[in-house]
Parts: sequence; structure tokens; C-alpha cells
Amino acid sequence: MKLFSPITIHGLTLANRLCVPAMVTRLSGEDGFVNEEIVRRYSAFARGEAGLVVVEAMAVHRSKSGPLLRICGDEFKPGLRELRRKMAEAGPSRVAPQIIHFLKISRSGWRQKVSDLSIAEIRQIAADYAQAAVRARDCGFDAVELHMAHAYTLSSFLSKLNGRRDDYGGSLENRLRLPLEVLEGVRRAVGSDFCVGVRFDAEECIKGGYTSEESRVIAWRLAQGGADYLSLSAGGKFEDAQPRPGEPLYPYTGYSGERTMPGANHPDGANLPMVAAVKQFLRERGCQTPVLASGKISTPELAEKVLLSGTADLIGMARPLLADPMWPRKVREGHFDRVIRCCYANVCKAKDEHFQTVTCFLWPKGATQAPLSEDQEAPCWPQGAGLDASIRQGRVTLSWRQATDNEAVYGYDVWRGEGGELRRIAAVPAGLLAYHDATVVCGVRYEYEVKAYDLAGNRSISSNRVCVQA
Amino acid sequence: MKLFSPITIHGLTLANRLCVPAMVTRLSGEDGFVNEEIVRRYSAFARGEAGLVVVEAMAVHRSKSGPLLRICGDEFKPGLRELRRKMAEAGPSRVAPQIIHFLKISRSGWRQKVSDLSIAEIRQIAADYAQAAVRARDCGFDAVELHMAHAYTLSSFLSKLNGRRDDYGGSLENRLRLPLEVLEGVRRAVGSDFCVGVRFDAEECIKGGYTSEESRVIAWRLAQGGADYLSLSAGGKFEDAQPRPGEPLYPYTGYSGERTMPGANHPDGANLPMVAAVKQFLRERGCQTPVLASGKISTPELAEKVLLSGTADLIGMARPLLADPMWPRKVREGHFDRVIRCCYANVCKAKDEHFQTVTCFLWPKGATQAPLSEDQEAPCWPQGAGLDASIRQGRVTLSWRQATDNEAVYGYDVWRGEGGELRRIAAVPAGLLAYHDATVVCGVRYEYEVKAYDLAGNRSISSNRVCVQA
Repeated sequence: MKLFSPITIHGLTLANRLCVPAMVTRLSGEDGFVNEEIVRRYSAFARGEAGLVVVEAMAVHRSKSGPLLRICGDEFKPGLRELRRKMAEAGPSRVAPQIIHFLKISRSGWRQKVSDLSIAEIRQIAADYAQAAVRARDCGFDAVELHMAHAYTLSSFLSKLNGRRDDYGGSLENRLRLPLEVLEGVRRAVGSDFCVGVRFDAEECIKGGYTSEESRVIAWRLAQGGADYLSLSAGGKFEDAQPRPGEPLYPYTGYSGERTMPGANHPDGANLPMVAAVKQFLRERGCQTPVLASGKISTPELAEKVLLSGTADLIGMARPLLADPMWPRKVREGHFDRVIRCCYANVCKAKDEHFQTVTCFLWPKGATQAPLSEDQEAPCWPQGAGLDASIRQGRVTLSWRQATDNEAVYGYDVWRGEGGELRRIAAVPAGLLAYHDATVVCGVRYEYEVKAYDLAGNRSISSNRVCVQA
Repeated sequence: MKLFSPITIHGLTLANRLCVPAMVTRLSGEDGFVNEEIVRRYSAFARGEAGLVVVEAMAVHRSKSGPLLRICGDEFKPGLRELRRKMAEAGPSRVAPQIIHFLKISRSGWRQKVSDLSIAEIRQIAADYAQAAVRARDCGFDAVELHMAHAYTLSSFLSKLNGRRDDYGGSLENRLRLPLEVLEGVRRAVGSDFCVGVRFDAEECIKGGYTSEESRVIAWRLAQGGADYLSLSAGGKFEDAQPRPGEPLYPYTGYSGERTMPGANHPDGANLPMVAAVKQFLRERGCQTPVLASGKISTPELAEKVLLSGTADLIGMARPLLADPMWPRKVREGHFDRVIRCCYANVCKAKDEHFQTVTCFLWPKGATQAPLSEDQEAPCWPQGAGLDASIRQGRVTLSWRQATDNEAVYGYDVWRGEGGELRRIAAVPAGLLAYHDATVVCGVRYEYEVKAYDLAGNRSISSNRVCVQA
């Protein structure tokens, strides 16, 4: 599989094309230091053998915020170095911290805009990025990723809604000015032999925002400016964030935030058309900079298709690897059937929106990390699965009996077909023995099966198959 | 060209695949009667030979609204019959009125939701649609189109945000219930030999809304339910509309409204991926119902590509045919070079948002209709074009001399290249002799040319070519 072929990016070789994009965890304290839970979270990804693990955004400056890692001073270096060391012990992944600058925001609803910044403050942002990147290199990281996506400072400069009227706003080239200055400053500071990536929005997904019409040009300029890879996200903006009483405005709460982490209502690979547009534009100009696609890519089949079609060179999987950090190793060993599969219920996203520790709702209740098990024994149905289905008002209710396992039953996969092959449509945590399917329509005969899985992802045999005429 | 091949839809043969989707004009009064300006607007489309002209949404009920056509009583039939008759005099287009039911809304910010409706009110909606459809047939229209898109009643039933908890909400099949009842009632009322189309959203483009994951199933159910063609739009919802003091909430003012009428910041064919998903789903199920794609399709090349690739069977062009209703005839005769080309500045959309008469900003100042001319003589540059370019802060400023014409110079096309072929990037009304291009980036050499065009679309020779190193 191309997914498991190595790729060399500016001298840095990744063992495979699977990357964990930066994902907020809220596991760190407000002090910004690496702690044990952070080490455990990222060591799991390394153990799972993702080609590149991007560590969650860490601040390049000392501005106040909630729980957030920091890389804004040398006091943070021992913890970061230890994180890298522990990850190396756990597995072969390459590791890059994502470094971020954000503007001020208050619970009153006020938020600082890029148009409020003085030229001195703008220069400081570039200086902060450069120093943070040097710290990243010093701590043994393999690369650094500059956060230019979503609602944060550099993304707000790139935005079509950048309201500055000087050299840093108005025209596309002016909007690119600070991001390019940051990139240039980072490159100068870390030297020519260090890999520097950029993550930015391929589409803002807000009214008046930019789309691939401009992001493809932005991508090209960033590549010209020295970005070694381009990681494409979408949305995540303040402009359409939903205000919540007593909480600061949070950029992933609106429609654009849904596009950053498309949920079950979105098609697989929801953001691929814009990725394809960006990559085509680059290649037409002879620019070979690798492009990373993300956004609801969760199966080896889709990932491989994206790579083979040339849509992207790298695959970002955040939620699927949160659900099961062992995804890469299991799939490489031919065992996608043992992967704990994300069902895009977006409970992780909801937790983040409510400023709670980000965990996966498939994990055992109360767990702060994905469970670890090397068990080989699959769950079974001691009394038969007893899968039963009833339909009422366009809603199929499935229920089944409990499975058992030598360790613990972790959950159940629900599969559905319409006469042909069955597709997995949902995952249900172990505590529940029922599922409601409200997407059936009249005139179709649906078939359902359920499989139980354990902590290691071993699957039971399929339940009995039930048919429902909707 | 496939674009100019006929298609027969439920016994109704269109001469070509070009359709004018329903477009608000605000030319009618609040009385709801057809007037002279309405007749002129639609006769122009018939003269231009679009295969199908869908007349702007007309209300099936008597609920209060601003300027809006009505088909809610027999008193409206003479005007509608006259409209159809005048259109037949003007040209060969087939004509379908779009019929609409909308919920109540007040300037106070309150708006009625589908969850507020009683079962009796729901039955009345279906009855109103059936009676309106019969009136449409009686008036000599060739088909009727049921409006199930955007922020209106039937779309709000289809919506994933439909908040009803009875048979008409919750599950997908329940959300489909009223739309299918309306379709069934209309079919029963108009008989089996009349063409009934449906326009609905392929994607809601709002948080928690449906995407092609569901719209493909909706499309299939509507086709099963008797829809003869499926016209796909996107967005246009109340949920993300931007409130404006003293004005009722208007559904095209937010991001989802931008997706309904994607402007210059969006790529061409912005909504095609979801159309492709819908059509593929239908065809996989052996359903051959024609699918109409719309949303920034403006060139014969793109339209043809959409048809040949099988993405859609019909092409909706609203803004391009507002700019030049003669588009179909000119292109059929091999003269795309004489088309007055929409530049997606969305001034028409802004006018609609501010409850003004919808006109095209390329039209001569003050015109309420597209100009008509059969002139053959092209404009010329009596003193040379004198195209000049300067660059400052990532913004190229172009200026040129006035062209002259035997009738009148209508406007100027601006063309740009980057070493290869030049592409038209903007249109400028005749009063202006300058253009600002804020999308250039450093490191690229841009070439510009300008052409003048007259009321008939005859183009002058190209101006001198200027080069700018950004």
C-alpha cells in the first residue's frame, strides 16, 4: 500500500503517510508544562507507529489562556524534551510540535482583531515564532509545524476578512506578508536542515471568506517561502462561532467548526475537493511540496484512494487515531478488522467545546487514555446475539444481548446493508445494547448485523442478521 | 454539444439542457399579480432560448409578504396565462412556475417554525400546493416546480433541524412525509401527464444540517414519489442569516446564502461534488430521473463537462442569464464571445438582500431589464486603449481609455494571464475605466488585456497587453 510507503520531506523520512494532526487534549494545566497524561497520550500514537505525530498547539507567547502547552520560554524545554524522549521509547514516529500564536479574548465577548495590532506587536509575533521553533529543534523534535489555520493569529492575517489597511491587509500578498515573515524568520532561526511545515485552511467556510480559489495561491506562496509540507484544514473561525453565556467565544462551535471536524452528517473525505484543487495548482507550477489531506478520512481504502489518485501525499487522521492510536500498526499488519473505529459522533469535539478533557466516547467510561491490550481472544455471544429489530415512524430500533470477553467487551459495531454488502454505520459503547437508526426510508429492505469487540479490537462473530422492510 | 441536445422529461421535451432556475426579481407588487416588468423579464429568457425557464417562486397561500407573485387564487390566473402567452411569442422555452409555501416571519425577529404547525395546517399546505399546481397547468405552463429548497416550509420539514416530534419530524422518513404528501397531492391533482419537478438543497450548509449523505436519499425518495426532475440547490437558510435592524430576517444573508449564490470568492461549479454524489446514488439504484446542477456554472466548457461527465443532466444558470438572457442562443450560434458575462460580483444578490429590485450591475445604469440589441458593429479604441498598469502593496491598478461604439459601450472585460493563456477575471461597467486586482502575489509576472463590448456583446479588439512583475 502506498499508505505504508515512506516519504522524505526536506531530509526527514516518515515511515508511512499517516499523520496525526494537532489535536487539542486539554490534558495540560494552565501552567503550560508537559505532564504525565500528555506523555501517555502522545506515546500511544508513537506506539501505534503513525508516520508523523503533530503535538497539539503550544503557545509561542505568554498570553493568558486556559489549559494549553507552552513553548514560549526555556523553562518548558525539559518537559518537551522528555516528551520527545518518551515517544521515541514508545515507537518510531517522527514528531513535530505545532506552534501557535493567538490573540486576546475575554468572556465579555470582546476579542482582539489583527487590525488592533501595532507594527511592533507584529514583529514580536514573528520573533516569538522563531524562538519557539528553535526550542522545538533543541528539544529533539524532528520538525516544527506553524499553525496558520482556524481562528488564530496567522490565519486571521491570511483571512479574506483581515481588516488591516496597511502593508499587512487588503490584498492577498499583504495578507500573506506576516505568515511569510514568520516562515522566513523560523527558517533563518532553525537553519536550512530542519523540516518546517505549515497547517492552514484550504477554505474558511464563512461568509466572505476565502476558498480554494485563494488557498491554492496561498499554498504556492508558502511553499515558495520555504514551507516543507502543507497540511490542509478547513474552517474553525470566530466569525460564525456560537456565543455561550459566561464562556469565551470558541471558534469550533459554528458551521465552520463543523467543517474542521466533520461529523456523522458529513460525507467521508468531506474536504477533499479543495485539497485536490490546491495540489493541482501546485503541481501545475512545478511545485512538489507534499500536501496533507484531513477531514473524515478513516478507512485504509479511502486513504489509499486519496494517495493513489494524487489528491494528497499525506493523510491526516485525528479522530480515528484518538479512538485507536494503534490504527497504523494494526492496518499495516493487515488487521483493519481489529481497529476500534471512530464513528464521528463528535463527542470529543463537544467536550472540547465545553472546555473538558478531550477523550473518545468509545473508550471505557472515565478513561483519560485509549485502553491498551495485546489480547488475542475475541468476544463471544454466550446466549447468542439475539439481535432484534423493530421499526416505527422511520426509525429502526435494534437491540441485542450482551457479549462476553476474557478481558472486557469494549463496544459493538452496527452494520447495515440494502441487499448488497453490509457497511458499518455506527459504534456503540459496551454499556449500551441498543441502537436507533433514523436514516431509513420507505421502500427499502435493510439488513443489520452487530459485532462485539474487546479492548484490543478483536471482533466477535457476526450476530444473527435481521431484516427490516421500511 | 450535449448542452444543445434535447431532453424529454415525463413527456416534456426541452430543446436544450440550459435552465433558468427560479430567481427572485422583486419586480412584482405586493398584490402578487403579473405586471409588465415581469413579462419583460421572462420574455427575455424565452427570446434567449433557454430550454426551461422556471418563473420565480409564487405563493400557494395568502400569507403576508413583500413583493411576490401569487398563484393562490383564480384571480391570478389571467395574468399568469398572459405571461405564458407572451413568453411563447418571444421564444421556444418551456416554462414552469416555481410554487412556494413559506412560514410567517416578523420584523421583531420572531419566525414561525415547522414545529409550530398543527396537523390541520400541514394538511392545508398540501392542499394549497395541489390547487396551485392545477392553476399552473390551467394557465398553460409546461410544468410546475415545487420549492423544497432554502428556508421555506417544505425545506424546513426536510431539514435535519426540523424540530417536530410527531410523524412529521425526527427520522428522515418523517421529515420526508409532508414533502412526499405534497408531491402525491400535486400529482393526483394535475394528472399523470404533467411534468412536476422539485428543487431542494443538496446540502444545507449550516451547523448540524444535512449534506449529500442524506440529500441523495431524499432525492431518491422524491424520485420514487413522482418527481420528474430534481433541481439541486444549496444553503439559503434562516439558521445562519444575519439579523439587520428593522428588517425581517432574510435567509440569504449568511454563509449558507453565499453557498446558494456563490460569488467571486468561490470556485466555479462550487456545488458540483454534492450533485455528483446525489446523481451517482440515484443511478446506482436504477433511477433515471434527470438531475439539474447549479451554482457558478457560467461557461459552455464547464456546462458541457458537467453533462459529459454525467455529473448532471441539466444545467441551471441564474446569474449568467440575468446578465445576458441571450446566452443560450448566442452560444448555440457559436458566439460565446458575444455573451455579456456575469462576473459574480453578486450585486444582484446584495440588492435582493436589501429588498430592492434585482438587476444586474453590468446593465446600463438605471435599467430594470437587460438591454436588447441586434447590432453587429464592435466597439473600437479611437485613441488606442492605452492600458496602463501599476503595482503597489500586492494590488495592481489598471486604467485605460474610453472605447466608442455606434450604439453604446456597455462595459469592459479584464483578462489576465501568468505566462500562458489569458483568462477573463472581471467585468467593469462602461462608466469605469479602471480595475484593481488585489489577488496578485509576489514572484509572478502577470499579463493583462482589456476588451470593450457593446449592448449586443460585440467585442472590440484587445487592448495593448501590459505586464506586471508582482
